[in-house]
Amino acid sequence: MNAAGQATRRRLLDAATAEFAAHGIAGARVDRIAADARANKAQLYAYFTSKDGLFDAVFGEHIDMIVNTVPLDGGDLPGYAVRLYDAYLEHPELVRLATWARLERTPTGALFTPAEPPATAEHASTAEHPDARKLRAIADAQDSGHIDPSLAPADVLSIVTAMSMTWSPASAVHAAHRDEDAAEHERRRRALSETVRRAFAP
Amino acid sequence: MNAAGQATRRRLLDAATAEFAAHGIAGARVDRIAADARANKAQLYAYFTSKDGLFDAVFGEHIDMIVNTVPLDGGDLPGYAVRLYDAYLEHPELVRLATWARLERTPTGALFTPAEPPATAEHASTAEHPDARKLRAIADAQDSGHIDPSLAPADVLSIVTAMSMTWSPASAVHAAHRDEDAAEHERRRRALSETVRRAFAP
Repeated sequence: MNAAGQATRRRLLDAATAEFAAHGIAGARVDRIAADARANKAQLYAYFTSKDGLFDAVFGEHIDMIVNTVPLDGGDLPGYAVRLYDAYLEHPELVRLATWARLERTPTGALFTPAEPPATAEHASTAEHPDARKLRAIADAQDSGHIDPSLAPADVLSIVTAMSMTWSPASAVHAAHRDEDAAEHERRRRALSETVRRAFAP
Repeated sequence: MNAAGQATRRRLLDAATAEFAAHGIAGARVDRIAADARANKAQLYAYFTSKDGLFDAVFGEHIDMIVNTVPLDGGDLPGYAVRLYDAYLEHPELVRLATWARLERTPTGALFTPAEPPATAEHASTAEHPDARKLRAIADAQDSGHIDPSLAPADVLSIVTAMSMTWSPASAVHAAHRDEDAAEHERRRRALSETVRRAFAP
């Protein structure tokens, strides 16, 4: 692919990210994506085969950002949850892409599955589950007395993730917005920090 | 509307509930809904005007089930969260409808807004926010020493709802399924009960 082709492909991915985050897979319109990317539908299909193939490319690019936008610090789960609250305010599209993928692609089970193993056997051992690093950080923090060791690491990760998403763009009660009062955000951060601290203390 | 018309309208609502829960608003197909309801599209549009109008009718019917499927007992938040875990296993469509509504209709702010006030002024005082009863139950439990009074009732409701949805069909980590091992469900119920108990204790 030449430089112009690579630039077009990049613009298609960026336009598709915005379109999928706003409308989901079924709701996304390839016409709009092509127009927003100053490309045409033939180019879109040449690079990504289909709307579903384009979503796969967008979601694959964003899994790492969704999973690792905030590193999990097992010694400070309250701070981790509060940093996620702020990250979702700043990047609502990450939560929206993950939630569309959940509803439209993966109704049950793990949302993220291990990356495809590399083609060559010598690199096979580097393929690990996107959550593996977080689970190790939780187990280490249980060993060092920072997190209740009676809870399964997978449950700690699931519950603290759910708590951090209390006011996220997937909230069933109230989804926060950057333009709300600073005092409102601060009250939620305090409530989140305090309840996470208590929930997982040894 | 005669009895046959009412039966057709009911079948359309039931078929639409399944279709919207599975595919969302943009993804739903009125052809499939009409066929599943043994009706035709002209009848669908006569009763509900549009696909959006049909979703409004379905969602309006389900808000009460979504909000009140499990009554909030302020004296037993852990039990409340565990009963919600079981309700979502039994009725994943309730969580899916709420999450589609969040993504496709109400990206920020409160998901549920007060019901339209009744047409006659004498009933106006009966219109209250769907969450109002839960917020009163939380405030009462704070007064009686069952829930930490330093937390805002709205934050308690938001956080305990998010915790109860940890493994729901909207989960960003792992969505539970009825066919998983009983031991798996039981371990999650215990983790949820324990973390909720600690998070909100006075």
